[in-house]
Amino acid sequence: MTDKPTNPPQLLPTVAIQNALQVSSDNWFEYPVTAHPHHTDYGGVVWHGSYVAWMEEARVECLRSIGVDYAKLVALGCELRVVELSIRYRQPVLMGMTAIVKTRIAKIAGVRIPVDYEIRSPDGQDLFVTAHVTLVPVEQERGKILRQLPPGLKDALLKLTASH
Amino acid sequence: MTDKPTNPPQLLPTVAIQNALQVSSDNWFEYPVTAHPHHTDYGGVVWHGSYVAWMEEARVECLRSIGVDYAKLVALGCELRVVELSIRYRQPVLMGMTAIVKTRIAKIAGVRIPVDYEIRSPDGQDLFVTAHVTLVPVEQERGKILRQLPPGLKDALLKLTASH
Amino acid sequence: MTDKPTNPPQLLPTVAIQNALQVSSDNWFEYPVTAHPHHTDYGGVVWHGSYVAWMEEARVECLRSIGVDYAKLVALGCELRVVELSIRYRQPVLMGMTAIVKTRIAKIAGVRIPVDYEIRSPDGQDLFVTAHVTLVPVEQERGKILRQLPPGLKDALLKLTASH
Amino acid sequence: MTDKPTNPPQLLPTVAIQNALQVSSDNWFEYPVTAHPHHTDYGGVVWHGSYVAWMEEARVECLRSIGVDYAKLVALGCELRVVELSIRYRQPVLMGMTAIVKTRIAKIAGVRIPVDYEIRSPDGQDLFVTAHVTLVPVEQERGKILRQLPPGLKDALLKLTASH
Repeated sequence: MTDKPTNPPQLLPTVAIQNALQVSSDNWFEYPVTAHPHHTDYGGVVWHGSYVAWMEEARVECLRSIGVDYAKLVALGCELRVVELSIRYRQPVLMGMTAIVKTRIAKIAGVRIPVDYEIRSPDGQDLFVTAHVTLVPVEQERGKILRQLPPGLKDALLKLTASH
Repeated sequence: MTDKPTNPPQLLPTVAIQNALQVSSDNWFEYPVTAHPHHTDYGGVVWHGSYVAWMEEARVECLRSIGVDYAKLVALGCELRVVELSIRYRQPVLMGMTAIVKTRIAKIAGVRIPVDYEIRSPDGQDLFVTAHVTLVPVEQERGKILRQLPPGLKDALLKLTASH
Repeated sequence: MTDKPTNPPQLLPTVAIQNALQVSSDNWFEYPVTAHPHHTDYGGVVWHGSYVAWMEEARVECLRSIGVDYAKLVALGCELRVVELSIRYRQPVLMGMTAIVKTRIAKIAGVRIPVDYEIRSPDGQDLFVTAHVTLVPVEQERGKILRQLPPGLKDALLKLTASH
Repeated sequence: MTDKPTNPPQLLPTVAIQNALQVSSDNWFEYPVTAHPHHTDYGGVVWHGSYVAWMEEARVECLRSIGVDYAKLVALGCELRVVELSIRYRQPVLMGMTAIVKTRIAKIAGVRIPVDYEIRSPDGQDLFVTAHVTLVPVEQERGKILRQLPPGLKDALLKLTASH
C-alpha cells in the first residue's frame, strides 16, 4: 500500500445497476443491525470496535445495492482496503437495541472512495455514532494500490454519486 | 454520555507508581502483539478492525504500568469510554508478524484523556498504523460523564505526562 | 457457576407467545446470515470462531420469536450462560455467501436448555456446520446457577418444545 | 473439505526442534492470556466465543515452540483447519484476570491432529475451561484435505507426542 499505484486488471463486476430500494430520499443507504451479546462489553453497551464490523457490513451491502458484488470483485483480484477510519461515539447502543447504519458513498477523488456514516435509532431521533472511512482499490496479489478504479466499479459509483 | 457531567465517586486505584519498565526514552509505552489467524481477513493481512482491539489492550497495559488497574477502576464504578477514534492504515501487518503497539497518553484537558498510537515493526523501521483515541471517565451505573477524573487516576496520568 | 444453584428471582419476560413466522415445518427456527469480510480469515473462508457469534444471534432471535426478549431477561437479573459448546465443521462458508442458521431448542432437562444447530445453504442442499450448545440460567449479580428457570421463560420454552 | 484427500505438496517448515521452554513437566504448553475489555460481554466476564481465539493463539505458539512456523506453513500452501471443536465452560474468567491456556497436541491419527486444552488460573487452582479441537491439513488453493501431513510438520509432531 505504500508502493506506487499500478494499472487495474480488467474487472467486470455485475453492474446491472438495480433499483436500490433501501436508499432513502437523502441518498443514505440504510442497513439495520441489532446489538447482540457478542457485540457488547462489560459495560453492557456495544463495544467501540463492534461498530467497525457493522460499518463494513453496511458498506458491502451498499455496494451490492448498486450492483457491485464485493466477493466477486475480490475474486477478480481487486480489494477495497480501508486506509482511513474515524469515528465519533455520541451515545452508546445498548444490548437488544436495533439501530440503522446509514451509509453514503461521497464523491470519489482519483482512486479514493470516501464513505460517510451515521448510526441512528430506527425512528431517526437518536444519533449514536458518526463516522468516516476512506477506501482505495488494491491489487489483491501484490498488495499495490491500483492507478484507476476498475471500470465497472467506477461506473456504478459515479451513477450513485451523480444522484446526490 | 450525552448527559451533563456528574461528580466523581471516591475512587482509589492502585497508584503506587511503579517504574514503567516498558516505557522507551521518548515516553512511548511498548506493547508487543502477534498477528494470529483470527486477526486476519480474506486478504491474508490483519483485518482493519483488529487494530482497535490491540490498541485497547495496549492502553490497559499502559495504565497498569503507571499503577492503574483498569478492572479495579471499573469495579469502583468508573469506566474510561472511547469517545473519538481515528486510524490511518499505512502498511498492513501480515499473518505471523510481530508488531509493537507504541502508546502515549498525551496532555489531559479537563476530563478528556488523549492517547496517541504508532504500530511499528520490532526494529522500528516499518510504520504500519498511526492512530489517536480520546477517552472520558464515565460513571458506570448511570452512564454519565464525570465532572472530574478520579483523583488516583488523575495523579498517575499527571506524573506520566509531566515527564514528557 | 460452580456454586450451588439458588432460587430464581421473579422474572416476567414478555411471553405473549407470538406466531413464530420463521419456524419451518420441522420446528427449526431459521436465521439468515451473510459472510462479510470481518467474518473471514486468511483462508478466504469464514473463521471457525465466527460461527459462535452467528449461533448466538440465531439463539437470541429464536427466543424473541417465542416472546422472550433476551435483553429484558438480563435486565431482570437472569442471564442464559453457555456451559457447553460443540461444533462440527463440514464445509466452509465462503466470503459473500448467505447461509441459514437453523436453530432448535430441544427438551429442557431441569435448568439445562439444549440448543441444536445446522448451518445450511439457503436451498438446504449444503450442510456447512452442525453444532450443539447447552445453556443454564445464571443469576446475573452473584453469578450462581438458578434452581429453576424463570417461570415466563419456562412456559415459553415448554410451549415451543411441546410442538416437536 | 468434503472432497477426497489429495497428496501433500513438498512442505519444508522450519523444524529445527528447539527446546520448548514453555512446556511443563506434564507436556502441556502454557500460553498466558489477559482478559481485556474487548474479550468481555455485558455480564462482565469473558464472552464464550473469545476463548476460541485464545485457543487458536495458544495452538499457533505451541507449534512455534516445536519449530513449526504456522504462517510459513500456510505460505507453502498448507492450512491446518479446525474440523471439530468442543468446549466445556466451568467457571468464567473475569475482566482483568490473567489465565494460562494449557495446550497439548495428542497422538495424531492419520491426518487428524487432536489438541487438548485446559484454561487455568496462574496458580493452577482454578479450572475455567476444558476443550478439545481436531485439526486436519488442507491444501490451501483447492481446499482439499491432504492425504498425508507435510513431512516436516509430521516429524515435529511425532517428536512432541513421543515424549508423552
